[in-house]
Amino acid sequence: MTIPDKQLAAVFHTHGGPENVKFEEVPVAEPGQDEVLVNIKYTGVCHTDLHALQGDWPLPAKMPLIGGHEGAGVVVKVGAGVTRLKIGDRVGVKWMNSSCGNCEYCMKAEETICPHIQLSGYTVDGTFQHYCIANATHATIIPESVPLEVAAPIMCAGITCYRALKESKVGPGEWICIPGAGGGLGHLAVQYAKAMAMRVVAIDTGDDKAELVKSFGAEVFLDFKKEADMIEAVKAATNGGAHGTLVLSTSPKSYEQAAGFARPGSTMVTVSMPAGAKLGADIFWLTVKMLKICGSHVGNRIDSIEALEYVSRGLVKPYYKVQPFSTLPDVYRLMHENKIAGRIVLDLSK
Amino acid sequence: MTIPDKQLAAVFHTHGGPENVKFEEVPVAEPGQDEVLVNIKYTGVCHTDLHALQGDWPLPAKMPLIGGHEGAGVVVKVGAGVTRLKIGDRVGVKWMNSSCGNCEYCMKAEETICPHIQLSGYTVDGTFQHYCIANATHATIIPESVPLEVAAPIMCAGITCYRALKESKVGPGEWICIPGAGGGLGHLAVQYAKAMAMRVVAIDTGDDKAELVKSFGAEVFLDFKKEADMIEAVKAATNGGAHGTLVLSTSPKSYEQAAGFARPGSTMVTVSMPAGAKLGADIFWLTVKMLKICGSHVGNRIDSIEALEYVSRGLVKPYYKVQPFSTLPDVYRLMHENKIAGRIVLDLSK
Amino acid sequence: MTIPDKQLAAVFHTHGGPENVKFEEVPVAEPGQDEVLVNIKYTGVCHTDLHALQGDWPLPAKMPLIGGHEGAGVVVKVGAGVTRLKIGDRVGVKWMNSSCGNCEYCMKAEETICPHIQLSGYTVDGTFQHYCIANATHATIIPESVPLEVAAPIMCAGITCYRALKESKVGPGEWICIPGAGGGLGHLAVQYAKAMAMRVVAIDTGDDKAELVKSFGAEVFLDFKKEADMIEAVKAATNGGAHGTLVLSTSPKSYEQAAGFARPGSTMVTVSMPAGAKLGADIFWLTVKMLKICGSHVGNRIDSIEALEYVSRGLVKPYYKVQPFSTLPDVYRLMHENKIAGRIVLDLSK
Amino acid sequence: MTIPDKQLAAVFHTHGGPENVKFEEVPVAEPGQDEVLVNIKYTGVCHTDLHALQGDWPLPAKMPLIGGHEGAGVVVKVGAGVTRLKIGDRVGVKWMNSSCGNCEYCMKAEETICPHIQLSGYTVDGTFQHYCIANATHATIIPESVPLEVAAPIMCAGITCYRALKESKVGPGEWICIPGAGGGLGHLAVQYAKAMAMRVVAIDTGDDKAELVKSFGAEVFLDFKKEADMIEAVKAATNGGAHGTLVLSTSPKSYEQAAGFARPGSTMVTVSMPAGAKLGADIFWLTVKMLKICGSHVGNRIDSIEALEYVSRGLVKPYYKVQPFSTLPDVYRLMHENKIAGRIVLDLSK
Repeated sequence: MTIPDKQLAAVFHTHGGPENVKFEEVPVAEPGQDEVLVNIKYTGVCHTDLHALQGDWPLPAKMPLIGGHEGAGVVVKVGAGVTRLKIGDRVGVKWMNSSCGNCEYCMKAEETICPHIQLSGYTVDGTFQHYCIANATHATIIPESVPLEVAAPIMCAGITCYRALKESKVGPGEWICIPGAGGGLGHLAVQYAKAMAMRVVAIDTGDDKAELVKSFGAEVFLDFKKEADMIEAVKAATNGGAHGTLVLSTSPKSYEQAAGFARPGSTMVTVSMPAGAKLGADIFWLTVKMLKICGSHVGNRIDSIEALEYVSRGLVKPYYKVQPFSTLPDVYRLMHENKIAGRIVLDLSK
Repeated sequence: MTIPDKQLAAVFHTHGGPENVKFEEVPVAEPGQDEVLVNIKYTGVCHTDLHALQGDWPLPAKMPLIGGHEGAGVVVKVGAGVTRLKIGDRVGVKWMNSSCGNCEYCMKAEETICPHIQLSGYTVDGTFQHYCIANATHATIIPESVPLEVAAPIMCAGITCYRALKESKVGPGEWICIPGAGGGLGHLAVQYAKAMAMRVVAIDTGDDKAELVKSFGAEVFLDFKKEADMIEAVKAATNGGAHGTLVLSTSPKSYEQAAGFARPGSTMVTVSMPAGAKLGADIFWLTVKMLKICGSHVGNRIDSIEALEYVSRGLVKPYYKVQPFSTLPDVYRLMHENKIAGRIVLDLSK
Repeated sequence: MTIPDKQLAAVFHTHGGPENVKFEEVPVAEPGQDEVLVNIKYTGVCHTDLHALQGDWPLPAKMPLIGGHEGAGVVVKVGAGVTRLKIGDRVGVKWMNSSCGNCEYCMKAEETICPHIQLSGYTVDGTFQHYCIANATHATIIPESVPLEVAAPIMCAGITCYRALKESKVGPGEWICIPGAGGGLGHLAVQYAKAMAMRVVAIDTGDDKAELVKSFGAEVFLDFKKEADMIEAVKAATNGGAHGTLVLSTSPKSYEQAAGFARPGSTMVTVSMPAGAKLGADIFWLTVKMLKICGSHVGNRIDSIEALEYVSRGLVKPYYKVQPFSTLPDVYRLMHENKIAGRIVLDLSK
Repeated sequence: MTIPDKQLAAVFHTHGGPENVKFEEVPVAEPGQDEVLVNIKYTGVCHTDLHALQGDWPLPAKMPLIGGHEGAGVVVKVGAGVTRLKIGDRVGVKWMNSSCGNCEYCMKAEETICPHIQLSGYTVDGTFQHYCIANATHATIIPESVPLEVAAPIMCAGITCYRALKESKVGPGEWICIPGAGGGLGHLAVQYAKAMAMRVVAIDTGDDKAELVKSFGAEVFLDFKKEADMIEAVKAATNGGAHGTLVLSTSPKSYEQAAGFARPGSTMVTVSMPAGAKLGADIFWLTVKMLKICGSHVGNRIDSIEALEYVSRGLVKPYYKVQPFSTLPDVYRLMHENKIAGRIVLDLSK
């Protein structure tokens, strides 16, 4: 295989709207000592990509930036010190591009909070290009049975849901409540939860979403436009409150509501990161009900492997639409307008 | 011992200020099937007693009410079904007066979140009287080596701190940060933390408090009136952030600050319950740092026994002043004005 | 309903063989303060009943003794202090008849190791009679959807397997290996494991058992009469060793073999209690592989409720045969000869 | 600093006795990509070194072999890919020389069970030489405040005890029982346990050892030559049994005894690896008391750092004697005769 010197990438030079994203010819990078070069075949588009573009998070991004962090492709070149991967390996490039490996967090397998973490499509260039640099320790090997286009959305949406479900501490046979169950993260969360033997109460709106999440294994669907008293509805469905809640919704009152239907002693996991938002939970009830709130973003290396394993076992199937790479600006636009159902996966060959 | 029919109690008939509290002659109650009658010798006064008086919590209180939930005394009568206690036993009466024993939470030793929980001096009459009813399952046996006046403040302040420290998941050799370390709860928290092999960063103000908490084993004292940047000060003292934080302070910005100096992945425990307060933590940082917030109030039966055990081993010593029972209205007044240092223990015989 | 004064019970007056078991007329007992009288409709027969009869355990049994501890029936009388149960309630009587409720273990919801534990059909009379005394705190309420004859074998075999699986710490998507998967406990363990999202490697022998355990959800069946190298076979099936092992087999070499195929760091749970047997595991490999061995017998109150919940959800179905009460001596005999497949449930009305 | 080409090392070419150990001139090795060359200043001698010499473990050793795995020295050369360490760093070389970093165990921070683990002085050459190769990821940085001769015995004995205490799950204020408390591992275990807020019951023999372990913080000392009934003695001292047991003794009946005095539900940790020994514990009591047995050897990277931190805080002090390197054969001999008190540390400069 010959690797070109130059390639097409979706780049933006300043924060702003979809119009800032340009397709430009950029050099193909050279993998460092412990890096590999990955020929990206498919990449998902995540809400975080929109935050990176808009620059509305309190975390500075690399600039100019090539976004994208749900990539799946093939290793085409390996750095001098790499032994774990070889040319031809099918790998995923995820939100966590690399961690330092030597800090106290990395030593405890808590790479997700490594202070030296690098983020694909945010602090380093990401997957909205044909050839992308990945860290050889962190790139996730994709099982043969999983098509690359299926693996792509797992690399952020899937891993994030899976790890957040672990953080919820909900055990087999216990109820997890998922507000936002019909969305890009939610529909995966429902399937992982089911596959982990949790019982799912899904909250979202519309008959289409109701049908979708039920087909994925949710036992109960509650439509937030129809339920007069969501707190009582969840309590009734779960015989006293959810044993855990995955707050995927970004609505400001989500936490207040979740604290209401949460079973005493249970955990609410926050994975959404709306810019500038504060937790609205009432301290009195939090304390008296001994509730826990837990922040969770991405997963570590082993989470990533396990998340793919559920896919390869046929227990989790992302719901996505494949579109040409060239449609990326439109995807940003639709995302900004909250008009995307499921996940968009870009085919880099088009 | 003869038990009188009537006794003196501090009663209020409507919510309001200290002037609502009256010393009245009331009947001595008869213990039910699984209850005992305790001749209260000493009782602490807790901030929660002020909330009960003021009626500013969203939890309805019994009315008229005899407050108090840090009692220590002697069993003088036992109900027909009681085998665990006998006349003459020295026992403590705590905030959790009883739980149902049969709900899923009680079956899991999580009595603190039993939906049928009864609270001393709140949903049932408490320890501001000479003879008080206690549940025979929940009354805590006080070791011989612990004087009753010492045991009194442990029954709420001590147990609460001890359990909250457990909830923090801070391990031996790790740093706990305690904002409000010099107060009624804080000075006990410092001692329990030290006795549990945690390393303590105490936050409070004034040289007196600095000296006090250092004498109790805090390695670092940070004065919030002197530190220009508390977040950096805690991080520097703990080599990267506290492994856990006990938020005893009720100031609104406590959580925002705590989220700043919390070590990634660590837990902040809230035990204060200021009326109407909301958590102010920023969702973005909570999520990215994978922080946990955990509500904790009181402890269960075994926590109570263990909390006393540390006292009997000489590792924890409450800092308190004994005053006559008759001074209770003054205590409410000083508490309302935030003028109490350490803990006030009332001597019921005076 | 009228309760007779006398009733038929299967009693033995001295340890020995099945011939020692006599059907005698005995008085119907009166429930104490915190007890209920249960009209037993069905009772399972467990291997432990044989140990009680033979007297080969180092734990003294009540004598004369009415055995049995897998009972299901209806409450017909309640003690004076009972509020949790009422006449007409459908309840199960389990191996753990009662615990003290007040020791450190009971306070921590570890009733299974209460030093004052009473065992049905061993230290107190059990379910091989029409009217049996049960402790009102411990009797398990049987959901309406679960027939009494189905609930019976859950009361020991089901609860034991379920709790042991919890003790194995095997998580969703991980492999549990179950030697003895086709037996009275094993066939339930396979179903509980599957319902808890574990992946099952079943070890037993014969095509009938292979088919049975596969129909219950085992992904892999290994026949110990056909596999030349069981250790390698399990390792191959589980990609490196089982994440947990439930040692239901009583063969002396079980532990040695289990230590061989156990994944490093994993737990082997022992539930069988062959009289006089010692653990044969090699200390060197145990240490180097950092394996854990964990003893587990019965479950606590909440385990019992949860175990029935899986049955009521249709996820676990005991495999049993109903026989008349009068056949009990034969059951003992067949059990002694290891000739029972699945579980025998006795119909007390016959 | 000039690094010589050749150096003196203690080598053996075949398994056998102390007479097989020869001081030979060997080449100084060149560090690989991710390795460093360490100028060893001090090295402890561990019982494992004797096993390596004798060849009585079922794990094949490199041959010829330079033993030793408790080294402390200074980095004098770094491999091309090393960023974590630099020349001049003071580091420890421990029993776990390296792990693969990429297997499921390494990804979970369970490097101690990595199947590709390399062991210093066993599968690779160790610290009985002036210049030793260490893996740059695993070499432990020694805090400035800890002298190298003090750090040496921590690198195996210290880490092993510390990790084993973690595995015991004994919490603050609970009792750990340490049979063999006066030995090379035991005297460190007592100090770590005390520093972790555990309460220590030490078992050993002789007034010297009694005094020593009490000076290290053991609350109770039981002399196995004087106690008529050790099981009852431990139970009495701990009010019902030890909450955890560290089985450092290699006597065959240790486990049988430990199972007797272990508190129900508690964990016994095995760290000794006598060649060929089997666990003698009785399955009946293990099961009924729900005991846990847990194998533990060495610790991972973070354990090693923490173990040194306790030393730098002055809470743990190894008890050792410094001797010239040339006395190594004598040390092997005394060790074989069980005549060593505390730890021998060799000064490589002599």
